[in-house]
Amino acid sequence: MEYKFSDKLASLKPSAIREIFKSLTDPTIISFAAGNPAPESFPVRELEKIGADIFANSPTAALQYSITEGYPQLREAVADRLKNKFSIGSDNDVTIITSGGQQGIELACKVLCSEGDAVICENPSFIGALNAFRSNGAVTVGVPLDDDGINADALEETIKNTPKAKMLYLIPTFQNPSGITMSEEKRRAVYRLALKYGLIIFEDNPYGELRFSGKDIPTIKSMDTEGIVIYCSSFSKILSAGMRVGYVCAPEPIISKMVVAKQSEDVHTNIFFQMLCCRYITEYDLDAHIDGIRKLYADKCALMLGCIDKEIPADKVSFTRSDGGLFIWGTLKCADDCSPLVKAAIEKKVAVVPGATFNCDTSLPSPSFRLNYSTPSDEQITEGIKRLGEAVRELYK
Amino acid sequence: MEYKFSDKLASLKPSAIREIFKSLTDPTIISFAAGNPAPESFPVRELEKIGADIFANSPTAALQYSITEGYPQLREAVADRLKNKFSIGSDNDVTIITSGGQQGIELACKVLCSEGDAVICENPSFIGALNAFRSNGAVTVGVPLDDDGINADALEETIKNTPKAKMLYLIPTFQNPSGITMSEEKRRAVYRLALKYGLIIFEDNPYGELRFSGKDIPTIKSMDTEGIVIYCSSFSKILSAGMRVGYVCAPEPIISKMVVAKQSEDVHTNIFFQMLCCRYITEYDLDAHIDGIRKLYADKCALMLGCIDKEIPADKVSFTRSDGGLFIWGTLKCADDCSPLVKAAIEKKVAVVPGATFNCDTSLPSPSFRLNYSTPSDEQITEGIKRLGEAVRELYK
Repeated sequence: MEYKFSDKLASLKPSAIREIFKSLTDPTIISFAAGNPAPESFPVRELEKIGADIFANSPTAALQYSITEGYPQLREAVADRLKNKFSIGSDNDVTIITSGGQQGIELACKVLCSEGDAVICENPSFIGALNAFRSNGAVTVGVPLDDDGINADALEETIKNTPKAKMLYLIPTFQNPSGITMSEEKRRAVYRLALKYGLIIFEDNPYGELRFSGKDIPTIKSMDTEGIVIYCSSFSKILSAGMRVGYVCAPEPIISKMVVAKQSEDVHTNIFFQMLCCRYITEYDLDAHIDGIRKLYADKCALMLGCIDKEIPADKVSFTRSDGGLFIWGTLKCADDCSPLVKAAIEKKVAVVPGATFNCDTSLPSPSFRLNYSTPSDEQITEGIKRLGEAVRELYK
Repeated sequence: MEYKFSDKLASLKPSAIREIFKSLTDPTIISFAAGNPAPESFPVRELEKIGADIFANSPTAALQYSITEGYPQLREAVADRLKNKFSIGSDNDVTIITSGGQQGIELACKVLCSEGDAVICENPSFIGALNAFRSNGAVTVGVPLDDDGINADALEETIKNTPKAKMLYLIPTFQNPSGITMSEEKRRAVYRLALKYGLIIFEDNPYGELRFSGKDIPTIKSMDTEGIVIYCSSFSKILSAGMRVGYVCAPEPIISKMVVAKQSEDVHTNIFFQMLCCRYITEYDLDAHIDGIRKLYADKCALMLGCIDKEIPADKVSFTRSDGGLFIWGTLKCADDCSPLVKAAIEKKVAVVPGATFNCDTSLPSPSFRLNYSTPSDEQITEGIKRLGEAVRELYK
């Protein structure tokens, strides 16, 4: 039997990262390729306690069908936190629970883009988002990044040249993969541009709370007086990634369509873990817990950067030095394509993600690669960067 | 701000059932409208015990990112059970875990149908599936049901007249909403037709294990020598609906595309509950547990049918008498449109689902309505059918 697939899926490949993740069954490989939170970041004993209480006292509600929008008390707790802590959410906005931030991204594209429509993205950008757009038949159009975020002139040119653009997808804080954070001034300029051209902004902010140095910058959503921003984040990086609980705050008409689409995708998000999440937020000190994660990642990031300074020749590769998030972005100064380095690293049993993975046009080579410091142990960071340094020195003499 | 939505979502309405479900906040309303499993069907104490053990002994694996295909041990347990108990799955088939059966349905359409393609369905059919097809821009084309399943002549005519048909969506056993089960002979005929016209069959079987009388009929998937059947089921009706764990068994090339699409929707299904599910299947007696649910539903169905015989004039309404599943399908003999009855019932505080909800063309009226007996208590069944009988007698004198 020869199978024929939809236009939108026919050419779509699995995410290289997930594939790398799957292939890392060799325990001798040190992986800087994942984007997993550190296991130490899960508040296991607290979740265990709440979980036992839910099984003991409200099992039926936790195991029965629930409503698509999400567990009402969790929605309220999230909306309150967004409002009080980040000035996010107007009277016209509604907050719903999604199956991870990933589902929020995918649903937004589904409700806004017909096949052939375009999503404008930072280039490089999060592969999970790019594939979500492609899997809905949307075209991804990339705009280069400056040190302070997306290039505004290039963005305006791109908008003008992309009449079918329906959405602008941005990760303004600790961008994945580049680690770049958009300045406040740039955020305001981008917001004005989107408004001028009638474009919906999707602000993806999974890493915003993982800042370990520098000052917080207001989200674009907090500037959204006109109802053009969809804000999305999740509990994956602060409570548990495996539970798949995220959320979206956006104008009611958009949310109402996203709910219809979500109904058709999974009816609702695992309700037991929505209850668990809600109880954790309302009964424990989430902010104190997040402070602990920040310190952990500050240390891990500093360790990796220290090793990089020691082991990798600065005249061959440059690295971003982010104030938070999970990633360091390396860029070769001496070559346009990092593929040979990625291969040489794997031979030395170190895995990094080649930058081309994150390009809107994946056929183009990239001199960059992504390193993650949240998942590996300190020993793995030290040893892995040493091996990467050897690979660099052997390849680029 | 005036929002513009994608072609596929612009006209899509929320599922009437979910909306009815949401509106049932009035505790005096007796609902026969849901499709929820009975709370007694959740093996709470066993799940609680396993859950505590997972938190105590493997919290990291249960809270960390996992692979899209699903928890390997659960996939294996499901594939083994399908093979050994139902003769489902050839060497060319692969089994993956989805976020409920709903996601299996939605993913299949996404990978097979471009916008404007068609899915041929039994008419009436499961609203969640119809909306999943619509939300992917596919057209739903209905074929009428006979007492032994889809009308084969009408099906062949429809296939011939629908050149853009890519998938045939069927619920052969205890069909939702009609309760009809397709005969073995009809299943073989439908399989041959699909093969003749190169159509992929999606066999949705969420209720197959809920048989309380009559003999099991082989699934269409068990006849699938040519690799044209996607088989989908879930644990929603036998362990917990709220956990959102389902599965799909299908030829590898189709599964491989579905995995790419799933990656973009939710990365993976809640891993804690995949582990929970796996442990339950492998450490407890699932078949014995299902036997208990069957007895429960046999009693509830018999009770509802007994009340119907007593309270509802047989010359006004006919009812299906199913050998399993969750639903009874009533059809007015004296009117073409049940809307007035549905309204009169709500005034008497009984909720049923109007048949038009399940039509491929929802603008057409339906003389039928759906009753659910798994969710209401015995007292609610007795009182609710009494009220429904009053509504029938008052309306159709």
